[in-house]
Amino acid sequence: MASRTQSVTTAHEHSSLNSSTNETMPEKAEVHMHSRGPRRSKYRHVAAYHSQLRHSSLSRDADVTPSFLGFRNLMVLVLVAMNLRLIIENFMKYGVLICIKCHDYRKQDLVLGSILFALVPCHLVLAYVIELSAASSAKQVVGLQKKTAEEKERDQQAFRSTWPYTAFLHTVNATLCLAVTSFVVYFYIHHPGIGTLCQLHAIIVWLKNCSYAFTNRDLRLAFLNPSADPGLPEIYATCPYPRNVSIDNLTYFWLAPTLVYQPVYPRSGSIRWSFVAKRLAEFVGLSVFIWLLSAQYAAPVLRNSIDKIAVMDIASILERVMKLSTISLIIWLAGFFALFQALLNALAEVMRFGDREFYTDWWNSSSLGTYWRSWNRPVYLFMKRHVYSPLVGRGWSPLAASSMVFVLSAILHEMLVGIPTHNFIGVAFFGMVFQLPLIIFTAPLEKMRDPLGKTVGNCIFWVSFCLVGQPLGALLYFFAWQAKYGSVSRMSP
Amino acid sequence: MASRTQSVTTAHEHSSLNSSTNETMPEKAEVHMHSRGPRRSKYRHVAAYHSQLRHSSLSRDADVTPSFLGFRNLMVLVLVAMNLRLIIENFMKYGVLICIKCHDYRKQDLVLGSILFALVPCHLVLAYVIELSAASSAKQVVGLQKKTAEEKERDQQAFRSTWPYTAFLHTVNATLCLAVTSFVVYFYIHHPGIGTLCQLHAIIVWLKNCSYAFTNRDLRLAFLNPSADPGLPEIYATCPYPRNVSIDNLTYFWLAPTLVYQPVYPRSGSIRWSFVAKRLAEFVGLSVFIWLLSAQYAAPVLRNSIDKIAVMDIASILERVMKLSTISLIIWLAGFFALFQALLNALAEVMRFGDREFYTDWWNSSSLGTYWRSWNRPVYLFMKRHVYSPLVGRGWSPLAASSMVFVLSAILHEMLVGIPTHNFIGVAFFGMVFQLPLIIFTAPLEKMRDPLGKTVGNCIFWVSFCLVGQPLGALLYFFAWQAKYGSVSRMSP
Repeated sequence: MASRTQSVTTAHEHSSLNSSTNETMPEKAEVHMHSRGPRRSKYRHVAAYHSQLRHSSLSRDADVTPSFLGFRNLMVLVLVAMNLRLIIENFMKYGVLICIKCHDYRKQDLVLGSILFALVPCHLVLAYVIELSAASSAKQVVGLQKKTAEEKERDQQAFRSTWPYTAFLHTVNATLCLAVTSFVVYFYIHHPGIGTLCQLHAIIVWLKNCSYAFTNRDLRLAFLNPSADPGLPEIYATCPYPRNVSIDNLTYFWLAPTLVYQPVYPRSGSIRWSFVAKRLAEFVGLSVFIWLLSAQYAAPVLRNSIDKIAVMDIASILERVMKLSTISLIIWLAGFFALFQALLNALAEVMRFGDREFYTDWWNSSSLGTYWRSWNRPVYLFMKRHVYSPLVGRGWSPLAASSMVFVLSAILHEMLVGIPTHNFIGVAFFGMVFQLPLIIFTAPLEKMRDPLGKTVGNCIFWVSFCLVGQPLGALLYFFAWQAKYGSVSRMSP
Repeated sequence: MASRTQSVTTAHEHSSLNSSTNETMPEKAEVHMHSRGPRRSKYRHVAAYHSQLRHSSLSRDADVTPSFLGFRNLMVLVLVAMNLRLIIENFMKYGVLICIKCHDYRKQDLVLGSILFALVPCHLVLAYVIELSAASSAKQVVGLQKKTAEEKERDQQAFRSTWPYTAFLHTVNATLCLAVTSFVVYFYIHHPGIGTLCQLHAIIVWLKNCSYAFTNRDLRLAFLNPSADPGLPEIYATCPYPRNVSIDNLTYFWLAPTLVYQPVYPRSGSIRWSFVAKRLAEFVGLSVFIWLLSAQYAAPVLRNSIDKIAVMDIASILERVMKLSTISLIIWLAGFFALFQALLNALAEVMRFGDREFYTDWWNSSSLGTYWRSWNRPVYLFMKRHVYSPLVGRGWSPLAASSMVFVLSAILHEMLVGIPTHNFIGVAFFGMVFQLPLIIFTAPLEKMRDPLGKTVGNCIFWVSFCLVGQPLGALLYFFAWQAKYGSVSRMSP
């Protein structure tokens, strides 16, 4: 130790002399670095790992913002993990709730349901008869070539006056179709599922009915004065009025996956049965999935929330709605895919129906307006063609016309939900009407050039529609049902 | 009605004559369409909305796959909703668990902790003294210019033989630094938090100690035979050996946010105090956030899982781990940001330390290897410079060398977790060692050209590390702690 300290002192004495050596050394090193370029030193512990100014990649002053793709994967994984946990929790709490025998439906429901399913299309046949008579008289008017111009004109006037009768008959026919079904479902079909199917079928046929009547009226008018350039679409040329008024043509419209009547549709080539099989398999699989989900996960949550709603415990209701939101969201997405992708595509393939655009990318919609235009094209096209554009044509403002559309669709929604659940509580109705302010509110967000605006709009859509609207509606109708029948609480453990 | 039926019959009679008219009409229409291009008909109900062949955007045969950006937003929203729900649930179940007074730590812990914090850096001073003596004797050898070459050579040989002594002293010094702290923390500091801080401080200083010794040894060897082109980094030129062996230089290394000693570091310009303030605010805010999270959410989950682990109910343990995973993940991410972004950047700014690359985008890493190279750069650089590359230099295979690195880091991890929690259960150790097979397993995924491989690798990283490894480790150490002291169960409601 003594020698060491001594050497220290000597070191201090010599440091002045050595300074020169110390200076020269690094220069030499530097020269070498330059001459041979930077390469590993034979001394492993001296490498300069901190050799330049660098910023943390999350700092503002970083040159490039890093990608965050990894966090997207993380989100998916966390979602999976969280829901897997809920599945385990649910299983530990309730065990297996799925049971086919327990599912109680009354024989009467099935019988009445099938009768309704058989009767409803008959109204289309009636509509056909009405159109046939109208068409024939129209042909009569046009047909009499020998007449003079003013005679022709008088005849046409006389014929136009017959439209009210045709309209009246169509209205009676269509209304009957809807009224009878609604009456039977509301008073005689207990099971909400069967009821919903019948109601849905009746509404679809009713819409097809209306479209058939309106379209044929305009085709007839165009037919009556060919001179006045009706500007009919090209593709109708292959089947002009009144030849389109045939039972085959109507049958095709009845079965085709559309609510908008056209004499002619774009048709695809041959039927790819493998495609049909795949789509049907998807549909069946998803239906089972949805059934399992609602039986095992949705039902308990709904049951547990009954008393919470009864005592209006806001925090608990919020908690229930949030718990329900995930399940109802999954059910909703699965249901959308099952219906609009799987079933309608299978049907379209079988019917060789060419236009398969049953939806566009509604999940990206950055405003409620875009959403309603894109998620359910068949209904949207019906409303646009037979409600919106005629009203605008009559000088209504776009806002008024679309308000009309939403009020109509609100009525149909309430019929579709309220009647099978035997509860006209108007939640579906006001839910739809409430879309109008939301649409007006989110419209500017969509127009923003800044992507943030679009993102905010998209989030508003998801929250308002899927995370709050759907589960809240389900909860309220379930509560109303349970308050009326209480059958569910008996089911609950 | 009679007239109607009659007109129908007449219509049928005339249909043959009219057929010509029917044919001519659509052609005319078609001509118009062609001449003027498609435009709205004056008849609103006839527009052909189905005018072309189109595919559903989710079908395989769709021309363009749509963007799914909307679903990303949905995922974020669902995550927020699910966790909001858990927050409400937690609150309804436990109320507010956060309470500052209840937090019990012993006066002894604080006293001992502060003593350790004061003592540990002294070992750096000792290291400095050791280096100073070595440097002086080295200068002595180099300094004696009058000697002949072989004399010089003999002296250098003589000097090299002194390295073992220096090494021995450094080892004793460094080991003492770590051993004393570990001993005190394990036997006398009850509170795991205070213990962890002391242990972390000791380990950091120990690493700095090692780096200082190794680097100076190589610098000294380079200094002893300048002729042999040591190839030292350019930036060292401004402070050559032995001038770098000064108390200022060491103090800077002690405080600088790095574990790799360099005589010279890249330095940033002036200190932006606003930057420092922001980073410190982030650090404090996040620390409070983490504390609240662990007190309100992590603690109950941990407590509830104790009996589950005791009876080894796998399903429940899985459920607990999953429930814990989200919380521990958030705590982990917040902790990472607080330490590596906020605190280290603040420190670097104060020290005008230029190289702020304390991490790179580890969240995108598609293999465990990349993760360990990128999430904690200071430690990675230390291991690379002072363990990996020297071993490889001695002819070890890269695999053997990195195994050595992970074994060493496993020991340090176990010391960091096992000692403050007074439980050497080896989970941290084997958790680290287990990284090696994972790294080997995920390495090929990263090299795949197909992005799917990278995504899979990234998911494996997230699951193994954040969703399983972290929470499971926390659970086991908590269980061990509770089994040893049981103090926590007394806290539980």
